[in-house]
Amino acid sequence: MSIYWNETTSKIIPYVPGEQPQDKKYIKLNTNENPYPPSPKVIEAINSAACDTLRLYPDPECKMLKEAIAAYYNVGIENIFTGNGSDEILAFCFMAFFDEQKPVKFADITYSFYNVYADFFKVPYEIVPLNQDFSLPVEKFATSEEPFRQAGIIVANPNAPTGMAVDINDIERIAAANQNSVVIIDEAYVDFGCESAVQLTKKYPNILVIHTLSKSRSLAGLRAGFAIGSAELIEGLERVKNSFNSYTLDRIAIAAAAAALKDVEYFEMTRKKIIHTREKFSKDLAQLGFKVIPSSANFVFVSHGTFKADFLFQELKNRGILVRYFKKPGIDNYLRITIGTDEEMDTVVETIKDMK
Amino acid sequence: MSIYWNETTSKIIPYVPGEQPQDKKYIKLNTNENPYPPSPKVIEAINSAACDTLRLYPDPECKMLKEAIAAYYNVGIENIFTGNGSDEILAFCFMAFFDEQKPVKFADITYSFYNVYADFFKVPYEIVPLNQDFSLPVEKFATSEEPFRQAGIIVANPNAPTGMAVDINDIERIAAANQNSVVIIDEAYVDFGCESAVQLTKKYPNILVIHTLSKSRSLAGLRAGFAIGSAELIEGLERVKNSFNSYTLDRIAIAAAAAALKDVEYFEMTRKKIIHTREKFSKDLAQLGFKVIPSSANFVFVSHGTFKADFLFQELKNRGILVRYFKKPGIDNYLRITIGTDEEMDTVVETIKDMK
Repeated sequence: MSIYWNETTSKIIPYVPGEQPQDKKYIKLNTNENPYPPSPKVIEAINSAACDTLRLYPDPECKMLKEAIAAYYNVGIENIFTGNGSDEILAFCFMAFFDEQKPVKFADITYSFYNVYADFFKVPYEIVPLNQDFSLPVEKFATSEEPFRQAGIIVANPNAPTGMAVDINDIERIAAANQNSVVIIDEAYVDFGCESAVQLTKKYPNILVIHTLSKSRSLAGLRAGFAIGSAELIEGLERVKNSFNSYTLDRIAIAAAAAALKDVEYFEMTRKKIIHTREKFSKDLAQLGFKVIPSSANFVFVSHGTFKADFLFQELKNRGILVRYFKKPGIDNYLRITIGTDEEMDTVVETIKDMK
Repeated sequence: MSIYWNETTSKIIPYVPGEQPQDKKYIKLNTNENPYPPSPKVIEAINSAACDTLRLYPDPECKMLKEAIAAYYNVGIENIFTGNGSDEILAFCFMAFFDEQKPVKFADITYSFYNVYADFFKVPYEIVPLNQDFSLPVEKFATSEEPFRQAGIIVANPNAPTGMAVDINDIERIAAANQNSVVIIDEAYVDFGCESAVQLTKKYPNILVIHTLSKSRSLAGLRAGFAIGSAELIEGLERVKNSFNSYTLDRIAIAAAAAALKDVEYFEMTRKKIIHTREKFSKDLAQLGFKVIPSSANFVFVSHGTFKADFLFQELKNRGILVRYFKKPGIDNYLRITIGTDEEMDTVVETIKDMK
């Protein structure tokens, strides 16, 4: 505590990201990073951006990056917002669309930054419990009881930390039932196997789809994300950004992110590899007595019939394998394990076998 | 306007940065960028960071960068906050220290982002007019009438767009008179010729000094800044950052910024060159009938006896030289001209001579 902090700063409980241990070399499967390096074209783009004009401010419009995104997703430049990671974009959404008057709605088990934002920006929120099987109770989000409330909805698809996908028709039902509210679809993991809502943004001006380059584009270390939606939603985000920090993406990030978007072949190759590894690993774990939630992401959410999750977490860590354990009601007997290379996942399987 | 925007988003008037024209090649003296490229060691650092582990999240603590800053300024790691440009740090200051209850005080002629932040974050503010000669009315900031008001003060030193320095003893008077308030000293341009308040932060827990790498370190395109202050002020900023975006600096920016801080020789060489060019250019302009405000920054603020500033701005632009003109009461007959290379400034002088 400090006399210099305002009330919000004194009260907030900040988000805690997965650990980035420095003590020893782990097989690191705790923060859903991609096991493959970014496209070689990204490295080329970085090297030429570095030789270029770093002494000059970047383009505040990030036009080069927006053009690459527009080409890939077949949307207009005016439908794209770029940010310093998708977390920054989520924060800007709270600043642009929500306020103290109306609640934002999200699931009880989902990305744990949403309620940190809500508390921090003093936005009330309504927590909707997932179904017993961790699926989304769509009808509770697609209710039209209060069509003019202008609140907000956030759905992670696929969800984290469960990995479960929501059907695109259900996403559309939610958007259609809440046409006066901003419906944020956080698609951080969408490239690993579920259908994106990007094309729905052309029909529904209230849908904002948020993507990151941290996962399927192997660029967690670069900090770049983007949002796709109607021109009015994008303009709202631009207004907030330009009242906060005119240049959130640097010259190197803009060039590197654009190069990543353009190398479709590399992207397809690496994401398919990860999907393939996930399917094999899920089968292997099932054979070891794990319950494996069907995953559309680059991680699996698993629980064992005998071994408790906190025990497994600690045992794996002792043996050099770092996974994520959330000590939270409802999921405190689950582990979230990022999908690494085939070799890494085989090591996990062998390590667990050894514990028996 | 949009039904999806909240009230703040609908009402705000965002900050407008200096233009980054794409239409033709200008001698670009409008956004206080450094005419020299960053240190060659920065480019080396970028190339090795790019080959490294971009697939992994960066260190949220930015330890490597903080260590370089700590070594250069002889302060503790716990006294340093790093951000995605000094603008992001200023925004975090408003979020961490100020609120709707008490006003923040700054000059009428100063960095024009301060009042944008205040409006955006709904912080009331008290505008203090500069003296006639653009110097800071120190007594109006060093007043102790309300010692427990816990408001805030922001002083840019040297000031922008005037370039005028505030004496370090006056900075100390302001800090001493406001020990219950956060006193932010925005030293974006301090390396070009005025004394830093960094060492005062050891005596006054209420001073926060903010630096950027955009100007004296030639890294406007990289987006990196830092703040130095008491551990409690820094912790306040960390709490805000970790409720907003855990990783605002990417792996490349961390490595590049650390390399820039370490190359003291290159830094000294380039900043001294700019100071030398500024002094010569100021004399040349005085001989052409300009009033030149004494500058401690990498720009000069000038007014001509005959030519109106808006005319000069447009004429220079037509002739391929971009400077900054603020159409604001009190300074609407002044131009802010960034210091480029000797050759560039000679061209400016010759171009103005040609107009006669």
